[in-house]
Amino acid sequence: MSIHGKNIIGNHLSALGTSTIASYNVLTNTVGDNTFYEATEEEINQAVVLATNAFKLYKNCSGKQRAAFLQAIAVEIEAAGDELIETACKETGLQVARITGERGRTVGQLRLFASFIEKGDWVNAIIDPALPDRTPLPRPDLRQMQVPIGPVAVFGASNFPLAFSVAGGDTASALAAGCPVVFKGHPAHPATCELVATAIIAAAKKTNMPNGVFSLVQGKSIEVGQALVAHHGISAIGFTGSFAGGKSIYDTAVRRPQPIPVYAEMSSINPVVFLPGVISEKAETLSQNFAGSITLGSGQFCTNPGIFLLLKNEGSEKFIQLLSDALSAIAPAPMLTPAIQRNYIQGIQKQRVQEGAKAVTHFDDQQSLPHLLVTSVTTVLQQPILLEEVFGPSSIAIFADDMPELLLFCDALHGQLTATIHGTATELLQARPLLDVLQTKVGRLLINGFPTGVEVAHAMVHGGPYPATTASRSTSVGTQAIYRFTRPVCYQNFPDALLPEALQQSNPLNIHRREG
Amino acid sequence: MSIHGKNIIGNHLSALGTSTIASYNVLTNTVGDNTFYEATEEEINQAVVLATNAFKLYKNCSGKQRAAFLQAIAVEIEAAGDELIETACKETGLQVARITGERGRTVGQLRLFASFIEKGDWVNAIIDPALPDRTPLPRPDLRQMQVPIGPVAVFGASNFPLAFSVAGGDTASALAAGCPVVFKGHPAHPATCELVATAIIAAAKKTNMPNGVFSLVQGKSIEVGQALVAHHGISAIGFTGSFAGGKSIYDTAVRRPQPIPVYAEMSSINPVVFLPGVISEKAETLSQNFAGSITLGSGQFCTNPGIFLLLKNEGSEKFIQLLSDALSAIAPAPMLTPAIQRNYIQGIQKQRVQEGAKAVTHFDDQQSLPHLLVTSVTTVLQQPILLEEVFGPSSIAIFADDMPELLLFCDALHGQLTATIHGTATELLQARPLLDVLQTKVGRLLINGFPTGVEVAHAMVHGGPYPATTASRSTSVGTQAIYRFTRPVCYQNFPDALLPEALQQSNPLNIHRREG
Repeated sequence: MSIHGKNIIGNHLSALGTSTIASYNVLTNTVGDNTFYEATEEEINQAVVLATNAFKLYKNCSGKQRAAFLQAIAVEIEAAGDELIETACKETGLQVARITGERGRTVGQLRLFASFIEKGDWVNAIIDPALPDRTPLPRPDLRQMQVPIGPVAVFGASNFPLAFSVAGGDTASALAAGCPVVFKGHPAHPATCELVATAIIAAAKKTNMPNGVFSLVQGKSIEVGQALVAHHGISAIGFTGSFAGGKSIYDTAVRRPQPIPVYAEMSSINPVVFLPGVISEKAETLSQNFAGSITLGSGQFCTNPGIFLLLKNEGSEKFIQLLSDALSAIAPAPMLTPAIQRNYIQGIQKQRVQEGAKAVTHFDDQQSLPHLLVTSVTTVLQQPILLEEVFGPSSIAIFADDMPELLLFCDALHGQLTATIHGTATELLQARPLLDVLQTKVGRLLINGFPTGVEVAHAMVHGGPYPATTASRSTSVGTQAIYRFTRPVCYQNFPDALLPEALQQSNPLNIHRREG
Repeated sequence: MSIHGKNIIGNHLSALGTSTIASYNVLTNTVGDNTFYEATEEEINQAVVLATNAFKLYKNCSGKQRAAFLQAIAVEIEAAGDELIETACKETGLQVARITGERGRTVGQLRLFASFIEKGDWVNAIIDPALPDRTPLPRPDLRQMQVPIGPVAVFGASNFPLAFSVAGGDTASALAAGCPVVFKGHPAHPATCELVATAIIAAAKKTNMPNGVFSLVQGKSIEVGQALVAHHGISAIGFTGSFAGGKSIYDTAVRRPQPIPVYAEMSSINPVVFLPGVISEKAETLSQNFAGSITLGSGQFCTNPGIFLLLKNEGSEKFIQLLSDALSAIAPAPMLTPAIQRNYIQGIQKQRVQEGAKAVTHFDDQQSLPHLLVTSVTTVLQQPILLEEVFGPSSIAIFADDMPELLLFCDALHGQLTATIHGTATELLQARPLLDVLQTKVGRLLINGFPTGVEVAHAMVHGGPYPATTASRSTSVGTQAIYRFTRPVCYQNFPDALLPEALQQSNPLNIHRREG
């Protein structure tokens, strides 16, 4: 398929603007072959108006129909074949095996959502039958279910060009919920965006979805994104990316004449605590595995462990040495974009000059070497810059003098996506106060594992208190992500024939319902 | 019990400030006997710090313990006896029967939340067991449940001094969720606030709850509320009141360094559609009942029907005449405060002078007479001021020329708490397009009923798209209101002994869990 570079506004292609984005080949460090037309305000408006009209039909599609659409998207993405893999590799510098795996995750995610909505239980039906004889007043018949919220704008991430992009978790959950999606193409992988958007449109046509159920607007400038967020037809935002990007979208959304919810997954340094016992038992293996987690995907994961905590003693000093050796042995891999690499190197530079922080790995201002800094709780409490996320293959060891100091530090942490504790069976049982504090800070708590690797499952929480996200009550990964794009409606004293099937008396969908 | 007028900061009384609020007796239209000390910034800080410390213990109380606390609050409120009823009547002008009924609703609500949390199913446990043999990668053990979000600030409403105030739905649901509450006393019923807060503290002591699980800060000035919303220790806001009040709290909350969710239930004109068939069949009864709904509690309900729609014909003209007669026969009742009465009269005055709007009931600028205005879709679309909520016993009849015009109007409506359709069985079946449009605008849809009267039940939705609320994904009435104050946490690969009971393998609480 040849790349056309146009915006995909429902079922038609559009290139009204004059501003363009050049694709970039990270593998060869050269400008790519394609040019993409940045969406104009008119095109953004067209996409949202189409989505608004599509919503009137799409919200009433059955779970089965929407599931068939999601299944068809998965098939079309697979049918895009090697071209999609190669394009994504070129645009991101990620390796074929990684992108192939990510495609598997992406289509698996679409199919999980399809199976989740196919039957209909997910609408969380609640029924309080009428009590006509109750005194002093009868109770009316009340039936509640979740309904879709309206057209959703989605902003994908640079680090997962498939799984957190055009047909990623945000789009999959919004479409599953019954909400049309207008996707803002990521300027770091516009060709990949176009290929996946084309697959979605093909699937929409094959499954007779309304025109406008999906659109792709390309754009590099802040204006494109802001115009989309500000459009009165948009009902909610899904975002994965930097704190600056997410916060700016949040600020626009809450200042609209009609504020809307923003589900922005932003910034996290994912603390890991290594308790002394487990370090003395397994320093070798732990340091190897931890180095792997720090450098996985060049450290370009939202769940990358940016800091870790240890009690100061001989064992932990030795652990740092082993970890430093392990990190130094890992060859640097290209980062997603030249800008990301530049930010990484600058971030490391800034950390290295902080008083009380000591670098124990090499530094090269021309490449993204894995990096390890060592400091203390006292230092980071005085120099909070050390707790700002540096996106890339680095981590900071923070020594605590004793457990009370470590607890104090954890209690002062900002919101995080994850926190992890490594310990022996015995010391974990004594670590309840630590777990108790960390639970208040995160969306996911791990024991003896590594935070990188976010399973797509029913029980996953990829979220957490601010600034990890702007909406700690939600997850952006796993089936529960669907509820970001729904709201409850109560039907009072409805004749059975006018109720949605999920709420009808005979329970024709045969779903689980809570009866009061 | 004698009223002391002090702030109730956890288990101690405090009157550090110099600014005071005088209570007001609406029944006699005179300043009351008591003076209340407005909370200082220091007192607000003390309350939030106590709440923050209490949270560390309270979040780990079992469902049974928290249920016992809620039950004890209900008992203490009942024990406050006639003094509470008399005080509330004096401060609000509402009648004894109404306040007695409202007390029943309030204690019933506390007991419903107690029974909802007692068993533990409400935490929505989801379990994806480990798949150690899965290829290419094993799946970790993932377990999710809802946990409390942190200390909550609650702002009550003037129109329900018990059920939407100190121990109302917001407080009950936050305490049920495991969140301490700092309640901002309502300046229109400060003595009622004090009596109920005293009951809560007595219950907290009797059930061994941590000091700071509840505080009352009194205040009339905007500063008290804003300082509470801005305090970094507050994790969420519950609010019921005016659009201006709710929006100003929302604006402060989203501009904090750490933004927090605001559940503000604000403004709604609750459209009612009368289809022609039912009017010609039951004009007499319908007009009587509708007049009752418009004037219930002097029209001071969030769900008061502020507008209603009819097709222009002879039957509907006759209906207006009957309704106007019914409204004129209802004696005016005192409103909650002199300011509310003033606003009502001014609001009516503003509506009456709009071109194309015709008043069909009497008007008196000295009392809050029930009021009916008649106009057309064309007029209100040009003069949207007619669609602004006027709090009180009035409604506006809006004539549509035909069903397409009526649909067009409904499609242009803002978010509402409720919408209602009256029709015969036959015409309701033909009204699907209308129901379909109205569903996208509201939290609750009613057929052949009246929106006033909000049942406290599992399936209730008292919420809706903006500006009805700032958070359409939630309800402020009914058991589902608890989820405004919780967030999901995922526990990955936890040893069974370290898991919360709700997630342990043997299911010791014997609760419903979703297994993936």
